Amino acid sequence: MGIDGAIDGFWGVVPAGGAGTRLWPLSRVGAPKFLHDLTGQGSTLLQQTRSRLAPLSGDRVLVVTGARHRSTVCAQLADLPEEAVLAEPSPRDSMAAIGWAAALLERRAVETGEDVVMGSFAADHVIDDADEFATAVRRAVDAARQDWLVTIGIEPTFASAAFGYVAEGEDLPDVPGALRVREFVEKPSVPVAEEYLSAGGYRWNAGMFVVRPRVLLDLLAEQDPDFAAALRGIAAEPDSLAEAWERLPRIAIDHAVAEPAAAAGRVATVHGDFGWEDVGDFDALGTLLGEREGLQVLGPTDRVVAREATGLVVPASGRTVAVVGLDDIVVVDTPDALLVASRDRAQDVKHVVARLRESGRDDLT
Amino acid sequence: MGIDGAIDGFWGVVPAGGAGTRLWPLSRVGAPKFLHDLTGQGSTLLQQTRSRLAPLSGDRVLVVTGARHRSTVCAQLADLPEEAVLAEPSPRDSMAAIGWAAALLERRAVETGEDVVMGSFAADHVIDDADEFATAVRRAVDAARQDWLVTIGIEPTFASAAFGYVAEGEDLPDVPGALRVREFVEKPSVPVAEEYLSAGGYRWNAGMFVVRPRVLLDLLAEQDPDFAAALRGIAAEPDSLAEAWERLPRIAIDHAVAEPAAAAGRVATVHGDFGWEDVGDFDALGTLLGEREGLQVLGPTDRVVAREATGLVVPASGRTVAVVGLDDIVVVDTPDALLVASRDRAQDVKHVVARLRESGRDDLT
Repeated sequence: MGIDGAIDGFWGVVPAGGAGTRLWPLSRVGAPKFLHDLTGQGSTLLQQTRSRLAPLSGDRVLVVTGARHRSTVCAQLADLPEEAVLAEPSPRDSMAAIGWAAALLERRAVETGEDVVMGSFAADHVIDDADEFATAVRRAVDAARQDWLVTIGIEPTFASAAFGYVAEGEDLPDVPGALRVREFVEKPSVPVAEEYLSAGGYRWNAGMFVVRPRVLLDLLAEQDPDFAAALRGIAAEPDSLAEAWERLPRIAIDHAVAEPAAAAGRVATVHGDFGWEDVGDFDALGTLLGEREGLQVLGPTDRVVAREATGLVVPASGRTVAVVGLDDIVVVDTPDALLVASRDRAQDVKHVVARLRESGRDDLT
Repeated sequence: MGIDGAIDGFWGVVPAGGAGTRLWPLSRVGAPKFLHDLTGQGSTLLQQTRSRLAPLSGDRVLVVTGARHRSTVCAQLADLPEEAVLAEPSPRDSMAAIGWAAALLERRAVETGEDVVMGSFAADHVIDDADEFATAVRRAVDAARQDWLVTIGIEPTFASAAFGYVAEGEDLPDVPGALRVREFVEKPSVPVAEEYLSAGGYRWNAGMFVVRPRVLLDLLAEQDPDFAAALRGIAAEPDSLAEAWERLPRIAIDHAVAEPAAAAGRVATVHGDFGWEDVGDFDALGTLLGEREGLQVLGPTDRVVAREATGLVVPASGRTVAVVGLDDIVVVDTPDALLVASRDRAQDVKHVVARLRESGRDDLT
């Protein structure tokens, strides 16, 4: 442990991508979910992610984001040096983003002789209990130092078909609180998810991976040696980024590494019981903000006049919003676009975005 | 009949008042219902009212409106001379407004020797069939020339508790299509209204009165001689308006004249079967615009993206409005205020306006 309480050699890696189209019109291509204050706490999801990592990694943070978001990310994380924010020339899914950071950190480990462990945490998730989060990460780092690829498994709170699952095996003998992973399971059907919950021993895969950079890249190399070599090449020769990046495969880290590694018995898990939410849509956001019964307001409450209404109102245009006689309503009011939806159809908001694109209204997406 | 097809000596009187708070945020204190195009036909309710009267009264029109609306009314009715628009110093209900016009027209009748008949028609009603309207008015004028106070009775389409009713008596012997009125009934309960409908012989009182100005003022004088004298005094001495106006009683013409005159056997009615709607709230507006099943858009349809939604959308801010998975929804989008309501709670919109006033947000009402 370092003098500041941080974990020696531990680096936070924050992939900050994804459009969040189901949170339109709040989330836009030009201003995705992670750049917004979705919890009403006065800081954005990105800033909260960075704050959670601060006690664990200090200033040792790499954020990987799209080139168009780089300046906003730097502005929101003004305490980080500019070189901590890596700009992807184009979106290439999570393996490229996290692998790039891994390749840079692998070089750093060699150059400094430090035992670098990285932990990858999406910029747009919400976590309730930062202390529990820190406990889980410390436990995961212990396992990662045994060369495991470690995932933090979230206790399922319902039979969700929106997340992948991690099937737990036996305890690791020499790392307290860590277990082997038998299998990564892709998003199941609801009935299958219900079976997992009643059987026990299944956790949500929240995409939180803790691992030595070398281990991650070596696991990738076992599946796709060219991909791993390309990432290491970019780290060795930064000027090659623009050209090399475009040839990287578009694949999620789960498919590229986690699933085959689990099948090969190389993945461990620790429990993350800290309250987790990926805020996938406005229904999830409403749940995050409070009970289903009331009317949740994300933003200035004095802009909302409600009369016998429940649901979620986001007054984000400065205008006054009146809601009368509606249950489980979602109203999201922005300067150029307005969404009115029922909470149980919150998933369908992505179709609105698709429709706008089809009709040439990309400016609104 | 005059050379232009208009009725000799017939004057249209258009009281243009009322806040229309149940149509907030479209209708405002500063821009009430009659100043808006609520039918999507490219003309406001006031302009449509004036157009309906043009074949009957030519340029013989008096509009009575609030002082703050005078310039807008003049702009919307640019074909009328400015003196055709009477500006009330303050709102004093319909007897004062219509009585003022009556007093002016009574003087005119004396000065010109014309047999003046006035017809009073609110500026914010919608009428489908202008030809049927003209037929009804001509019939009403015939009865008015026999010194009846004539009301045009609307065939009830449902057991409304929002309108007063006219109870019909026997036919007038010498005016085809006109009947005696037995009674004016104030807004009844729904069960009572249902009895009226099944009994037959009841019509909605739409506040359309056709009468000789002298007859109207004499009927008023029987109830309130001072009121009638004050109105005649204002007409004789226009400079006294500001001072005299403030002392006029606030009372509706129905209570001041129509009810007592009916009780005295002095009121007749003609049938108005022209499709009538007072557009009292957004539910009524939705019905006016189309079938209950679909999604009605009042305004530019290309601003609305709907997915499995029915109801009414008014995109009046220039912004794009998306509606997802909602039935019988009302969305009214204006530059400074947004209303989202269920159609069956459309009446409650007035409470929102009251709440805004209580909280000092008069600027939004």
